[in-house]
Amino acid sequence: MTRLTHLDEAGTARMVDVSAKAVTAREATAEGRIVMLPATRALIEGGAVAKGDVLAVARLAGIMAAKRTADLIPLCHPLPLSGVEVALAIEDTGVHVTATARTTHTTGVEMEALTAVTVALLTIYDMAKAVDRGMVIEGVRLLAKSGGRSGDWTA
Amino acid sequence: MTRLTHLDEAGTARMVDVSAKAVTAREATAEGRIVMLPATRALIEGGAVAKGDVLAVARLAGIMAAKRTADLIPLCHPLPLSGVEVALAIEDTGVHVTATARTTHTTGVEMEALTAVTVALLTIYDMAKAVDRGMVIEGVRLLAKSGGRSGDWTA
Amino acid sequence: MTRLTHLDEAGTARMVDVSAKAVTAREATAEGRIVMLPATRALIEGGAVAKGDVLAVARLAGIMAAKRTADLIPLCHPLPLSGVEVALAIEDTGVHVTATARTTHTTGVEMEALTAVTVALLTIYDMAKAVDRGMVIEGVRLLAKSGGRSGDWTA
Amino acid sequence: MTRLTHLDEAGTARMVDVSAKAVTAREATAEGRIVMLPATRALIEGGAVAKGDVLAVARLAGIMAAKRTADLIPLCHPLPLSGVEVALAIEDTGVHVTATARTTHTTGVEMEALTAVTVALLTIYDMAKAVDRGMVIEGVRLLAKSGGRSGDWTA
Amino acid sequence: MTRLTHLDEAGTARMVDVSAKAVTAREATAEGRIVMLPATRALIEGGAVAKGDVLAVARLAGIMAAKRTADLIPLCHPLPLSGVEVALAIEDTGVHVTATARTTHTTGVEMEALTAVTVALLTIYDMAKAVDRGMVIEGVRLLAKSGGRSGDWTA
Amino acid sequence: MTRLTHLDEAGTARMVDVSAKAVTAREATAEGRIVMLPATRALIEGGAVAKGDVLAVARLAGIMAAKRTADLIPLCHPLPLSGVEVALAIEDTGVHVTATARTTHTTGVEMEALTAVTVALLTIYDMAKAVDRGMVIEGVRLLAKSGGRSGDWTA
Repeated sequence: MTRLTHLDEAGTARMVDVSAKAVTAREATAEGRIVMLPATRALIEGGAVAKGDVLAVARLAGIMAAKRTADLIPLCHPLPLSGVEVALAIEDTGVHVTATARTTHTTGVEMEALTAVTVALLTIYDMAKAVDRGMVIEGVRLLAKSGGRSGDWTA
Repeated sequence: MTRLTHLDEAGTARMVDVSAKAVTAREATAEGRIVMLPATRALIEGGAVAKGDVLAVARLAGIMAAKRTADLIPLCHPLPLSGVEVALAIEDTGVHVTATARTTHTTGVEMEALTAVTVALLTIYDMAKAVDRGMVIEGVRLLAKSGGRSGDWTA
Repeated sequence: MTRLTHLDEAGTARMVDVSAKAVTAREATAEGRIVMLPATRALIEGGAVAKGDVLAVARLAGIMAAKRTADLIPLCHPLPLSGVEVALAIEDTGVHVTATARTTHTTGVEMEALTAVTVALLTIYDMAKAVDRGMVIEGVRLLAKSGGRSGDWTA
Repeated sequence: MTRLTHLDEAGTARMVDVSAKAVTAREATAEGRIVMLPATRALIEGGAVAKGDVLAVARLAGIMAAKRTADLIPLCHPLPLSGVEVALAIEDTGVHVTATARTTHTTGVEMEALTAVTVALLTIYDMAKAVDRGMVIEGVRLLAKSGGRSGDWTA
Repeated sequence: MTRLTHLDEAGTARMVDVSAKAVTAREATAEGRIVMLPATRALIEGGAVAKGDVLAVARLAGIMAAKRTADLIPLCHPLPLSGVEVALAIEDTGVHVTATARTTHTTGVEMEALTAVTVALLTIYDMAKAVDRGMVIEGVRLLAKSGGRSGDWTA
Repeated sequence: MTRLTHLDEAGTARMVDVSAKAVTAREATAEGRIVMLPATRALIEGGAVAKGDVLAVARLAGIMAAKRTADLIPLCHPLPLSGVEVALAIEDTGVHVTATARTTHTTGVEMEALTAVTVALLTIYDMAKAVDRGMVIEGVRLLAKSGGRSGDWTA
């Protein structure tokens, strides 16, 4: 029967041994969004036009969080990230975030991409929460991954 | 006009000075969920009944992440957390997470509660991603906060 | 004469240059125990049977600490861990912990295994200290290592 | 019946709420030792007489680790340490370490003192392991604590 | 005779006990600059006018580093920062950075302000090093501090 | 036209993708100094002769900070350091620091060497600031780098 790989035969947690996996170029892209009041979006957009600082702070937070992924996710392997890009776009209902992470290693970077997206979104919440406590983070998911034994995958 | 408090008059980022704010007991509760295939939920539920390990790992990850909030969210104030609880429940579409954080300090703990929820959800994704890459994190939001000058708030 | 390799000719500390060492698969296993009152052991064992949470928390703490080894041990090289397993067993006098760490790198993972054992034991102390302040950590040592120029070693 | 305070009624882990506990001056002292071959002890002692570097590195590692305690021990509260001292002494069988931690806060600093001792000992292991893999860490325990509702305690 | 307070009577390092010091509002301001080729300055200035991103990244890095000060400086006390501001200005020879840190605590925030300045400057070096490896960081110093027993001080 | 590589076409920050760069042995050396009152220098030198502790603390702080570089510098790649050496020398006006970092990776270690120098200097400031608040950090710069596509470089 199918079993979660992070649990051993007895059901206890472990960091899966990836020694035998091939070192290959791997890439993952994730997305998510934060839904907010139109007035909040206008404030962020206003700042974005003039200075870019709200989005710049969220982008940086996402990039830096990707580097902390293995510190945050208990069974995640530490790996040498070879690149991270975080893109933010103002959309009708708030802000949309996409993050792409890359490595050349034995494990994938899905968690790094998802962590970048999530922390970027939380950072927007933090910066705007004084004016809008009701913002909601929605649709955080993997969009695509490539490299590794399991091959390419697209949502 | 309304301005985002994390930006100064020139629109540049800063960690807001909270020296003058009162030290009071503060509490915040946040929630979120991860939506997954029924088969994935069954695997987690199976583990939960027997050993509790998947949910135990996610719970721990959430609690520990709450303590790292100021490291992750650029303009968030470091503060002495006085308690964190993370509750996970299997629901129809996946797993639901609620987190409550408490402090006695000059700033609130909304970000700590939201970070706990988010990292707990990401941890579930990590542990189950080998069998279900299409899981989606939804509805991460603040449920309630109390304490502080702005008073109580409920979603 | 023999010299400690972490000290240079003048006796000052340095992180030894391992550039010239071969990249090989390396593994290390360490153990340790925490000795406690029978009543304390019974409390942990009771929890373990019902929920596994005390041991689950200690196991996670050990795994996560292995990833922080280079942050904690000043002259230790950062390395990409390829796997960590922490096993806990209730024994007559308390709890016994074994940890195995693996990497494919130029340096060994003895410190990662020892750090995992130690932090797992400290976590048990933390969770049970309200009922038993006299617990003692004993016998933390390397059991075996393999890989690398110095070859295999067993205690 | 007695219950481990880090587990709630259902046996799941939580960071205990200490909001209601009094802010008082608290202090804890812990000890431990590392047992080694006489030749290893001689090497460290030799360095200690001339330069102090091995013991200096271990002392610093212990002090810095005390500040990371809440990052390492999952359910430990972060707190503002007001002082840490780590003393090392060459003894017949190796090196003995004592650490004292202090805070003025709602929770005790036992874990900070124990973490300082343990990481200092691990650091000695790391620096001397190339000449002596069989070193063993023994007798890590709390010696005394003062402050707080539970009052003073001595081993 | 005068003695460095971070060393005890025997000359060994310790984190000074500040339990007895008064909790007061404290503030410190530091400055520093990075000297570069005119062409490098022009590139940064060009970016600054259009997007603010180089300076925004350095500003964020400085603010976040202030929160990591006690992790980096071995004998520095962890403290709850109540505010950090980092200001960057293009000047004739490169970029000038000023940082102000605030806390209400028993110890000062000089190191936090200096760490913010330094990491902001290192970040500028990192972002521009591909076009100018010869940049030099100069004049990093404390400008002023207030609060605490030793009173106010101005450079 | 020349562009800063850490900014994409739109001028927003990113962690540059280095997947395609060759894995080679890389080394970088940086220097810096801290200028102080003669009396302060005498205190440090006095300690250095007797115990080495001030310089030992600064050396350790520099080595450990090199390992945290990617945590501090937002767009810096995490990499497996293969060695770090930090040398401190008392000079006429204060203390001079040199640091060399090495890796076998796709990116250089200039930032690691510069971070080691800077944090070592900040640590000296911290330890001596009670007797001399006017100390100034000067001349932090890269001395040499080797390895990688851009070849060797010397200041």
